[in-house]
Amino acid sequence: MAHKIKSNPNRPLILITNDDSIYSKGIRSLIDAVKHLGDVVVIAPSLPQSGMGHAVTLHEPLRLTEIKRFEGILASYACSGTPVDSVKIARDVVLDRKPDICLSGINHGSNSSINVIYSGTMSAAVEAGIEAIPSVGFSLSDHIADADFELSAEVVAKITKEMLENPQKMPILLNVNIPNIKKEELKGYKICRQAVAKWEEEFEQRTDPRGSIYYWLTGKFKNYDHQTDTDEWALANGYVSIVPVQFDLTNYKAMDVLNNNWHLND
Amino acid sequence: MAHKIKSNPNRPLILITNDDSIYSKGIRSLIDAVKHLGDVVVIAPSLPQSGMGHAVTLHEPLRLTEIKRFEGILASYACSGTPVDSVKIARDVVLDRKPDICLSGINHGSNSSINVIYSGTMSAAVEAGIEAIPSVGFSLSDHIADADFELSAEVVAKITKEMLENPQKMPILLNVNIPNIKKEELKGYKICRQAVAKWEEEFEQRTDPRGSIYYWLTGKFKNYDHQTDTDEWALANGYVSIVPVQFDLTNYKAMDVLNNNWHLND
Repeated sequence: MAHKIKSNPNRPLILITNDDSIYSKGIRSLIDAVKHLGDVVVIAPSLPQSGMGHAVTLHEPLRLTEIKRFEGILASYACSGTPVDSVKIARDVVLDRKPDICLSGINHGSNSSINVIYSGTMSAAVEAGIEAIPSVGFSLSDHIADADFELSAEVVAKITKEMLENPQKMPILLNVNIPNIKKEELKGYKICRQAVAKWEEEFEQRTDPRGSIYYWLTGKFKNYDHQTDTDEWALANGYVSIVPVQFDLTNYKAMDVLNNNWHLND
Repeated sequence: MAHKIKSNPNRPLILITNDDSIYSKGIRSLIDAVKHLGDVVVIAPSLPQSGMGHAVTLHEPLRLTEIKRFEGILASYACSGTPVDSVKIARDVVLDRKPDICLSGINHGSNSSINVIYSGTMSAAVEAGIEAIPSVGFSLSDHIADADFELSAEVVAKITKEMLENPQKMPILLNVNIPNIKKEELKGYKICRQAVAKWEEEFEQRTDPRGSIYYWLTGKFKNYDHQTDTDEWALANGYVSIVPVQFDLTNYKAMDVLNNNWHLND
């Protein structure tokens, strides 16, 4: 394959991706925070892919372009597709072995609660999880392009080190969100569950210069969950939230309800 | 709002969408199978959106175009965005109240097992579930554009009727897959869990007329789960598979592992 790179079997192989594109500040902060822990390969989207969820590109081919903008890493490529495409093509086309860990981010903006489903950052991490690769999506609760990733860099290094040093039989997949506070304000780390919350959509209606109506998706995030064991609570109270994530979407409780109350086979 | 429709409060309001586009055969079969059960409003993508997962459109506006190709329904619009966009804009812009049920499909091709995550059809149903709307994604194990939806139509009508007649306190969200067999070969309906399976990617490398390399995503579906309580088993053995789905991705078991073994707060 044209883009295959040769990894060092004696060093951890770290795959890095994101959804804000390979040109974002967040991915550079992530690379800088972990490159001392292993050999880094970056495959990240060439264009911003926020909100792409678990989309894959079926109707167009993908391209990889070598991008030389990071020091001290093995290789970096821009991928013309989605975050999930980036992980798939990394695994099959670029890497010569399964990476020891996949890190996605650092996202500009939080991906707590239900955003795990909409987020390209988290979907890339989930895709690595499906491939049985230990994986973490990192997000900072600050949307601005020039966000301050100083605290995030410390969090990323600490969690990545912990994961590399404690390999589990069932690879761990994490959604990590970092509050937008100063280093000295951080209260600690909390293992959390995903809060029950959702977006309340409000489409903004406009009229184009030719008189046709179009709509912009906007919305307000509403947290309906006021327990203290959630990622939303942790973030609001000065903690890094860590939600272990899985991809079995079966609603096991509802199986009993259906088996007891429905009569489709009568 | 320009596209708001007026619903009849005395009839069930049925929202229909899909990911193969409003021009597919599958959505017409779905509409025809349920329009006697309530008032149908269709909002479906104007272009094929297979594999779009839970993507939402953030960087472009959305447009709705009225499409008059179905008889005996309240309204139908093509949406320029994704399946999830279609559900969001239906709820906020088009419908005057929460629909009693949302149906997505009938997909050309199965969406069993891990495909619940990649599938635009299922992601639309999940989005309705997040909005607390009872919801079902229907898929037929046959990819061809002119697939035979005769058995599917019966399955769709039966499940939709059952859901409308048995409203639950916690709205039910289902992933229904229909085997590609004749009506008389159907063995029945099975409530299942999502099988442990995944795609083994193989990118096909090509060279364009200008000498640059590009890649097509291809892959083989591999089922690693040989238990008899899965959707894969049901489909392979002549049953309609029904997997109740949820969208709390927390890995609760891993919370204990992390709390007991990690020492991030030391």
